[in-house]
Amino acid sequence: MTDAATNMRLKLPIICFILQIILIILFGVLVQYDHETDAREWHNHTHSEYDNDFYYRYPSFQDVHVMIFIGFGFLMTFLQRYGFSSVGFNFLIAAFALQWATLMQGFFHGMHGGKIHIGVESMINADFCTGSVLISFGAVLGKTSPVQLLVMAIFEVTLFAVNEFILLSALGAKDAGGSMTIHTFGAYFGLMVTRVLYRPNLDKSKHRNCSVYHSDLFAMIGTIYLWMFWPSFNSAITAHGDDQHRTAMNTYYSLAACTLATYGMSALTAHDGKLDMVHIQNAALAGGVAAGTAGEMMLTPFGSMIVGFLAGIISVLGYKFLSPILEEKLKIQDTCGVHNLHGMPGVLGAIVGAVTAAVATKDVYGKGMEDVFPDVASGEVEASFQGVRQAISLAVTLGMALLGGLIVGFILKLPVFGAPPDTICFEDSIYWEVPGEEECHEDQLTTVRTEESEKLNS
Amino acid sequence: MTDAATNMRLKLPIICFILQIILIILFGVLVQYDHETDAREWHNHTHSEYDNDFYYRYPSFQDVHVMIFIGFGFLMTFLQRYGFSSVGFNFLIAAFALQWATLMQGFFHGMHGGKIHIGVESMINADFCTGSVLISFGAVLGKTSPVQLLVMAIFEVTLFAVNEFILLSALGAKDAGGSMTIHTFGAYFGLMVTRVLYRPNLDKSKHRNCSVYHSDLFAMIGTIYLWMFWPSFNSAITAHGDDQHRTAMNTYYSLAACTLATYGMSALTAHDGKLDMVHIQNAALAGGVAAGTAGEMMLTPFGSMIVGFLAGIISVLGYKFLSPILEEKLKIQDTCGVHNLHGMPGVLGAIVGAVTAAVATKDVYGKGMEDVFPDVASGEVEASFQGVRQAISLAVTLGMALLGGLIVGFILKLPVFGAPPDTICFEDSIYWEVPGEEECHEDQLTTVRTEESEKLNS
Amino acid sequence: MTDAATNMRLKLPIICFILQIILIILFGVLVQYDHETDAREWHNHTHSEYDNDFYYRYPSFQDVHVMIFIGFGFLMTFLQRYGFSSVGFNFLIAAFALQWATLMQGFFHGMHGGKIHIGVESMINADFCTGSVLISFGAVLGKTSPVQLLVMAIFEVTLFAVNEFILLSALGAKDAGGSMTIHTFGAYFGLMVTRVLYRPNLDKSKHRNCSVYHSDLFAMIGTIYLWMFWPSFNSAITAHGDDQHRTAMNTYYSLAACTLATYGMSALTAHDGKLDMVHIQNAALAGGVAAGTAGEMMLTPFGSMIVGFLAGIISVLGYKFLSPILEEKLKIQDTCGVHNLHGMPGVLGAIVGAVTAAVATKDVYGKGMEDVFPDVASGEVEASFQGVRQAISLAVTLGMALLGGLIVGFILKLPVFGAPPDTICFEDSIYWEVPGEEECHEDQLTTVRTEESEKLNS
Repeated sequence: MTDAATNMRLKLPIICFILQIILIILFGVLVQYDHETDAREWHNHTHSEYDNDFYYRYPSFQDVHVMIFIGFGFLMTFLQRYGFSSVGFNFLIAAFALQWATLMQGFFHGMHGGKIHIGVESMINADFCTGSVLISFGAVLGKTSPVQLLVMAIFEVTLFAVNEFILLSALGAKDAGGSMTIHTFGAYFGLMVTRVLYRPNLDKSKHRNCSVYHSDLFAMIGTIYLWMFWPSFNSAITAHGDDQHRTAMNTYYSLAACTLATYGMSALTAHDGKLDMVHIQNAALAGGVAAGTAGEMMLTPFGSMIVGFLAGIISVLGYKFLSPILEEKLKIQDTCGVHNLHGMPGVLGAIVGAVTAAVATKDVYGKGMEDVFPDVASGEVEASFQGVRQAISLAVTLGMALLGGLIVGFILKLPVFGAPPDTICFEDSIYWEVPGEEECHEDQLTTVRTEESEKLNS
Repeated sequence: MTDAATNMRLKLPIICFILQIILIILFGVLVQYDHETDAREWHNHTHSEYDNDFYYRYPSFQDVHVMIFIGFGFLMTFLQRYGFSSVGFNFLIAAFALQWATLMQGFFHGMHGGKIHIGVESMINADFCTGSVLISFGAVLGKTSPVQLLVMAIFEVTLFAVNEFILLSALGAKDAGGSMTIHTFGAYFGLMVTRVLYRPNLDKSKHRNCSVYHSDLFAMIGTIYLWMFWPSFNSAITAHGDDQHRTAMNTYYSLAACTLATYGMSALTAHDGKLDMVHIQNAALAGGVAAGTAGEMMLTPFGSMIVGFLAGIISVLGYKFLSPILEEKLKIQDTCGVHNLHGMPGVLGAIVGAVTAAVATKDVYGKGMEDVFPDVASGEVEASFQGVRQAISLAVTLGMALLGGLIVGFILKLPVFGAPPDTICFEDSIYWEVPGEEECHEDQLTTVRTEESEKLNS
Repeated sequence: MTDAATNMRLKLPIICFILQIILIILFGVLVQYDHETDAREWHNHTHSEYDNDFYYRYPSFQDVHVMIFIGFGFLMTFLQRYGFSSVGFNFLIAAFALQWATLMQGFFHGMHGGKIHIGVESMINADFCTGSVLISFGAVLGKTSPVQLLVMAIFEVTLFAVNEFILLSALGAKDAGGSMTIHTFGAYFGLMVTRVLYRPNLDKSKHRNCSVYHSDLFAMIGTIYLWMFWPSFNSAITAHGDDQHRTAMNTYYSLAACTLATYGMSALTAHDGKLDMVHIQNAALAGGVAAGTAGEMMLTPFGSMIVGFLAGIISVLGYKFLSPILEEKLKIQDTCGVHNLHGMPGVLGAIVGAVTAAVATKDVYGKGMEDVFPDVASGEVEASFQGVRQAISLAVTLGMALLGGLIVGFILKLPVFGAPPDTICFEDSIYWEVPGEEECHEDQLTTVRTEESEKLNS
């Protein structure tokens, strides 16, 4: 089932080792403990051990970590014969991307005497950037080799860091949960990549591009973990105190409202009034995406629920009506429907964030304005202009994502990366030793078949 | 396989949208950030960011959240063809119940100038109330439509809040981990509902009311998560400091002792000395239920282990001997055996709580008495009377649960809610699009069958 | 399929009940709340509630708890027909071992007026000791009865506590993440046990000693949880502040580098350039093991990545080349390959720890030296001698593990414990009621077969 082109014996080791060795060298040259992880620096000052940011953020970090590795990884196991690749390639590219993101984000977020300082906050940011790559992975799922995915990650992480720098530092936008930086960017980048990699004959693998009963249950593990920990995701790097607290709560209610909308819309639109697992697995999460920008603002639970409710409706409608159009008319083969889960809800989140920022008042935020909108608090800009900044940020993100995806898509077309042929997409056995081909299984399967054969013949 | 009555195309969207829109409106009118989530309020006072309750309780909240969505959801996937519904309906009714519980509990727990104030503690309480509904779901699992479940949740959440108010506020009982409020209430409510919904011809679906190999492994995911995070559950809303610490530890040892008792009893009672997955999946958790009331008290690890040990024994005996009697004599069809996991251990926990409260002394508790038994510390009541309060609370809970379940059971009998017929219980495909019926699968299955057929014929 | 010798009807209940009753009695006599869990003691002093160690360590504890019960339990579900036993026996022996470890470690770590004081730190230590037993379980997986496993746990926990006491108290070594105390000890103990229990005719069960598609996915749940939470594991009992922060971060980067090395080596060495699930499931974790000793030191992210990179390479090479040799030449049947995941990486971690300790300078650690190397900070020993201590500790651990495993192996050979025969190893149905043998399934399977038969015949 494997021909020379897709054989990974040399390609994958070469890229893994080269990348890891480069990373190690760059970490050796550039990276240092920050003043909260360095033994000497931390003990140079008098403070409570609790002042260490570790205690504010590490539980959130671990929740985000679970979302990245279990959440994204298992969400994509819905395909019947692509579970090893879904979890396994997710694991590989995430392990690479978080290291590379540490460097890229450290470079753009400001270096200290030529050194990148790292701690729990940079770890969360690295995981966030990784999430963006994994969203793009969802768009090309089943149609790419691990080498292609690593190459995509190299470029996407870099562009992510540039875009994040423009938004948060240059434009002064707020986007704690990454509706723009993570979701919109990752989705439209991935959609453009999959557009460039368009396979007119993908229907040759159509019979594998669907789920089986247990693969859908595995995918629900991913869904539920993403759903549960999204409040931690959105609040992981907001300011301490009320900000983290409020963001988590807003996201919690947005997701709950989104879930009811999803079930309602799924029964309404799906075949014969039956619920569709694709909707439940994905659209129920749109409320977390859509609360990514405004979650830290004084959105109120009421506002959060409206946002989540709309996100769920939009997302199901996207799966039902828009995805087929994107595939047929625009030739965008979006395996996981990231446009519906991350793309449109991300744009919705960005818009909600812009509006919520524009209507912020001193009366509502009090002294808390400094945490949420420091430039508004300092009088540097009006709240309405903060809204404009947010809107510009969305436009920049879309532009960066689409342009970046275009270029990277063409790079990934190089034949050297070992992409699977059209006939063997969505199939683990092209890159994995899959049980059932081993000797010990052969024995057993023979036994079973013989038994069945006897029963059938008797 | 679906007839008009069970078709959800209109019923489910209507109830989802109506409920969610009502929730949004009520949240808009009634709900506000509390002073730890509100930007202005929090910044109005001088305090360390760490004083924000978020840091005391959010890790516990997330553990509880995992128990509600993964724990309960996957515990019920043991049925061979009901995994989508187990996880999926669990997800739906939990997402609804936590919103509705926020309102109901906020209403009864005291409003502030006509407003309900919410934060991480109310989120935990909402999840707790949701847990009670999910316990009742376990009793009726496989025999109800999602619309019935939502209707049940509407009423059960309301009654839960009333009962909780009576116990904790009016009677001054202590029940941090909810042996009474959550487990006893949820179990007996659900048992009464399933009694009223008795199906004499349920054996027509008997062949689906059992597990397969991998469905039992999925269920173990639920079991293990419930088991691991039960210490967080019982300690999530106790007083800060020693109370949270002690409660978590008591529960940890209670569960460990319960597990050994469960394995021993399972081998002793089950067929041919073999372990029964039903016992392991359920009875091993009874130690957490039984430590729900006394866990925050000075129960000692020694006392906790005795309680857990007894709970495990009772629970296995219940599955082995009592459940068949309940079904045959009392016509209680308790799919998950919630009587054995939540009912009897909950009552045991309530009794242990009453006794432990009655013997509390200043000598043992010191100034910590204020946290655990404030009325005893203030001299308002004697410890022995606190024990009486606890016992009365158990009786009230049982009465509320049975009466509530009776009424709600009859409401759920209305034919409009789309309950499945006796012949198609414990079956996903009545409410879900199940893979294997799709075209792409049909293709593939045909291929496989053809191959097999060729092999068999050759 | 079960004969009298392996029947657990009396053996398992007897050992479970006797052990649990002994534990309860010993806890009643010996165990007390420590001053942070005791109501009176905690309230005797004035302090912030946050000073309670619960808030520093409970989130880490829960992560460790997940590793023990989900991580180890599901990692071993890769076998096609041993999932119930993998998760279920893991659950049983962990529930026993954590109680017994509380006593043994409490005894050796110093008693207070004849009493063992317990709190969240002792809970983490008990889970750590349990982890060591579960590593040994991995070596004998599929070839032992639950009674044998409990007997093994009794002795191994005891020896673990002795070895830990010698290392940490007598020798003054540092080993926060347990490269030596947990991984090296558990691995070589288990390898020696499985050597003594060598089965020359194990190939009679060879057809069951391999995975199927979905069992490999279940195993990936274990892998990913271990991978994600290893930073919490290594940092769970380090000093507060920078130490916990630094240890978590070092482990995070060690694991990431290890993962790329694993994928590269797997494709390089495995059949036809395809990735091997055995490598991914196991070798990718070696970076956590290898960072267990030096993780709390000023290893730097650079150093951590080198360690992880080497650990991944060594581990894959071990699976590919060393394991077959160990089995054929040394008659060590290591089911899970714990030598490759815990043995060699543990030794590597110990060596890295010794070297890192030996080169520690005041210049690098500043006042933080007191946390990491208190004896060096106090001037009692030179850093180089601390390195020698570490190296001696490794030798002691290897000796204790091999000698202990030898003795315990012979004890486990007693025929009374009900070990499975060679022909029925790696098989759940010998100790579990497995679905598919029940009446209700028989019915259904008949139906399905009849349908298929009809289709094939038509």
